[in-house]
Amino acid sequence: MSPRTAQTSAPVIESLAERWSPRAFDLSHELPEGALRGLLEAARWAPSANNTQPWRFIVARRGGESFARIVDTLVGFNQVWAVNAGALIVNLAETTDAGGNALPWAEYDLGQAVAHFSVQATAEGFHVHQLGGFDRDGVRAAFDLEDRLVPVSISAVGKIGSADDLPEVLRERELAPRTRLDLESLVLVRD
Amino acid sequence: MSPRTAQTSAPVIESLAERWSPRAFDLSHELPEGALRGLLEAARWAPSANNTQPWRFIVARRGGESFARIVDTLVGFNQVWAVNAGALIVNLAETTDAGGNALPWAEYDLGQAVAHFSVQATAEGFHVHQLGGFDRDGVRAAFDLEDRLVPVSISAVGKIGSADDLPEVLRERELAPRTRLDLESLVLVRD
Repeated sequence: MSPRTAQTSAPVIESLAERWSPRAFDLSHELPEGALRGLLEAARWAPSANNTQPWRFIVARRGGESFARIVDTLVGFNQVWAVNAGALIVNLAETTDAGGNALPWAEYDLGQAVAHFSVQATAEGFHVHQLGGFDRDGVRAAFDLEDRLVPVSISAVGKIGSADDLPEVLRERELAPRTRLDLESLVLVRD
Repeated sequence: MSPRTAQTSAPVIESLAERWSPRAFDLSHELPEGALRGLLEAARWAPSANNTQPWRFIVARRGGESFARIVDTLVGFNQVWAVNAGALIVNLAETTDAGGNALPWAEYDLGQAVAHFSVQATAEGFHVHQLGGFDRDGVRAAFDLEDRLVPVSISAVGKIGSADDLPEVLRERELAPRTRLDLESLVLVRD
């Protein structure tokens, strides 16, 4: 158990308890091709409304052309730290199917798939930090995406690095205690 | 490994591989009070945009007043099978904060929290089946919900039962092979 371990009032599995979102990634670690296959399989087998599977991914390892394109779309401090991740994954919600029918649970189900990805990542010794601060239209343009595919988040994934390598403002955030609302305030009714 | 185990091209952890969504729940199994605490803790520690935690839950064990109210809102076949679950959880997205500011990742983040709940449920020997077929306004009215809280899904959770106890049409679905799109069709770009 590390100081980053989730503090829970009942035990949860290690891949959940040890999951957290660092900004320090190890620039010396390169992800081999295929290293993310288990993480993507985990996402692939997430549940979704009527098994519509409204999730798509752009998988860009550091050093590749897609990685650079994604970094260009990042906003503010995200560009400082996410550039060290082993890969950046653009998480896309399929908001209508190929026939134009709305998939109203697309973002919700995408969230489930990305959660599966992150849980599997933790189990394999990786860390994931999702970010929402990026230029959606920039991503659309860079990858010529259909309108029905909405870039919702970007997952930075890789081996964790040292907080000491972060700029001071980010280092403080990295080391601050992890917090959550009380369980009691999340559960509105219980019987 | 059961016939329901996810078929993956790279290994994933048991709590992901063995997760699936049955309709047969064991009516003879009652969830003791507190049985869902680990599942809710798992949800509580999910990641969210700027740690906004835009998820709220109504937790209703079978036999209680809230359970009956939720069953009343279920549509079609859902009422037939979900009534046997040990509990029904209404998963609510907090779409604006208390100050009225939009939380645009609310549904996405709720999906992550419910995924965590389901993964922990699998680890504890439970099964979860989420459903979207319910009367949202009925849920709002039954629990006098603020407008900013959107009922997105309902999780049926409990001990799995026998497919033989399901009506024929549901029994066929229960035993049908589990399918997913190929990984290659989910990953639009990879480099």
